Amino acid sequence: MAACNREIVARMQSDVPLIPQLAAHLVAAGGKRLRPLLVLAAARLAGYDKYGEDMRHVGVAACVEFIHTATLLHDDVVDNSQLRRGLASANAVFGNKASVLVGDFLFARAFQILTADGSLPVMAILSAASATLAEGEVMQMTTQNDLSTSVEQYLKVIYGKTAALFAAACETGAVVAEAPDSVREALRLYGANLGMAFQLVDDALDYAADQAVLGKTVGDDFQEGKVTLPVLAAYHAGNEEERAFWVRTIENNEEQREGDLQRALDLIAQTDAIGVTMARAQEYAEDAVKALARIPQAAPGSARHRHEPLRELLVDVALYTANRAR
Amino acid sequence: MAACNREIVARMQSDVPLIPQLAAHLVAAGGKRLRPLLVLAAARLAGYDKYGEDMRHVGVAACVEFIHTATLLHDDVVDNSQLRRGLASANAVFGNKASVLVGDFLFARAFQILTADGSLPVMAILSAASATLAEGEVMQMTTQNDLSTSVEQYLKVIYGKTAALFAAACETGAVVAEAPDSVREALRLYGANLGMAFQLVDDALDYAADQAVLGKTVGDDFQEGKVTLPVLAAYHAGNEEERAFWVRTIENNEEQREGDLQRALDLIAQTDAIGVTMARAQEYAEDAVKALARIPQAAPGSARHRHEPLRELLVDVALYTANRAR
Repeated sequence: MAACNREIVARMQSDVPLIPQLAAHLVAAGGKRLRPLLVLAAARLAGYDKYGEDMRHVGVAACVEFIHTATLLHDDVVDNSQLRRGLASANAVFGNKASVLVGDFLFARAFQILTADGSLPVMAILSAASATLAEGEVMQMTTQNDLSTSVEQYLKVIYGKTAALFAAACETGAVVAEAPDSVREALRLYGANLGMAFQLVDDALDYAADQAVLGKTVGDDFQEGKVTLPVLAAYHAGNEEERAFWVRTIENNEEQREGDLQRALDLIAQTDAIGVTMARAQEYAEDAVKALARIPQAAPGSARHRHEPLRELLVDVALYTANRAR
Repeated sequence: MAACNREIVARMQSDVPLIPQLAAHLVAAGGKRLRPLLVLAAARLAGYDKYGEDMRHVGVAACVEFIHTATLLHDDVVDNSQLRRGLASANAVFGNKASVLVGDFLFARAFQILTADGSLPVMAILSAASATLAEGEVMQMTTQNDLSTSVEQYLKVIYGKTAALFAAACETGAVVAEAPDSVREALRLYGANLGMAFQLVDDALDYAADQAVLGKTVGDDFQEGKVTLPVLAAYHAGNEEERAFWVRTIENNEEQREGDLQRALDLIAQTDAIGVTMARAQEYAEDAVKALARIPQAAPGSARHRHEPLRELLVDVALYTANRAR
């Protein structure tokens, strides 16, 4: 992870000073670096055994973080978000224009690094995941303010906007390690299920989180009229009057008034909509753990054996994800 | 070009209906398709001799157009432009959010297509050009409202925002054709010089064009306080009072008032700033033509000979570019 952080800082440099300045703002804000961690851990667990100058998984991990950072920059612009990880968002500090363009730069730079790395399968995975990511965001936009969105459609949205890149991160790790297809598929599945759990919990926390803990405002999704599982669960479980409340506040969300967020939080608590969402997250997390079990244990004494503790780490990541800040 | 148009339409499809809808809006608006034309012509002139299903240059040309379209979508968002090619811009019709995300989708899709094509050198050229493009746009942003920008800096900006992708388009054509390095370099130089001429003329036309002809508003750059060569030339040639006018309208461009655009047009005419700009464009166009001459003539009867007329076409493109709408 230290090598990956160095790579991230080194590769976001540019002759145009604003680019590293803006990028550093996000890097300094210190994300969890969960996606690069997944690349690195997946690669080692899949038997990747290069060290020092020869390590390829570090560059791939940096690219995955660049792609993720680019989408964060663009998301904050399109959502007009003022906070990111508890600090002022890049668009709030540097303006929308700079955020859009630096996002484009990071995306282009990611594919430059991947080209230099030279693995076509890794590029195929990450370019496809990037397209799916954009599709997921567009889908989310078109389901916004629409309570007729099915739970299935919602799950498709979160697969696109979050789980696809988690899956890709894990799968590229396996590819770098030249692991057999069964291991590659197990790691891809682990990532996809972890990503689903992660986004479900994220959506639950938007109606439950302590802003100081998460650096995000409770009720952002509500104010934007995002149709997430907590809302759908409360809406479907509500009586006629409650459903009318959701229609007014989510479908016609420009009419939101004082007290509406509190009412939403109350209804979500009453209908146990957070519980419903967290239970789904738990199922995905368990599927993620099951997927890991498909990777054969390394024989004691084999080169791969020293990385077996990473299996436990990835299990912990899944279980922690499904329970964080609960 | 017909095959390339079909490829563009086929590859912008997505299960998310808004994506092809928005992309079709731009495709229907009918750009010049100059960049894909450059890929195709450069490839053939460099001796590319595959036809039908085997044609690789068509896919690369579509990718170049996708990258260009993505930057147009993002530019219109960051500049809040309402018109593009004489029609309502995509952000005006579909909103900023959709434009940013569909731009991201097209960019990702371009690298998906390139990965499937499988040429690492082509990907290296286009990912580097995409990064340079973003750098050019950021540089343009930081020179905005700044009359101390040197002509050299301005030229660096237009190289980044325009010429780099023209150069890349031509160079990838040569790479697809597996042409020798000297031909690859000649075509890259042709594209770079053509791109410089193209952007210089574009910047001149912003102070001279008939909106109905170009589908752009005269004075857009002025209102945005963009520091382009027509402005720099008029500013440097102006007396004290005139320079004060430029400082007020370009550096403090929020203070622009009625009559300012007319005054700017008058000063630009008085100082022959358009003439200065077009003369520079003409020099670049001539350098472009000279670069083409470095490509050896195909021997009569050789497979490459049938494509020699494309040399004349590329010469005409350069000369027309330097003179369009004059």
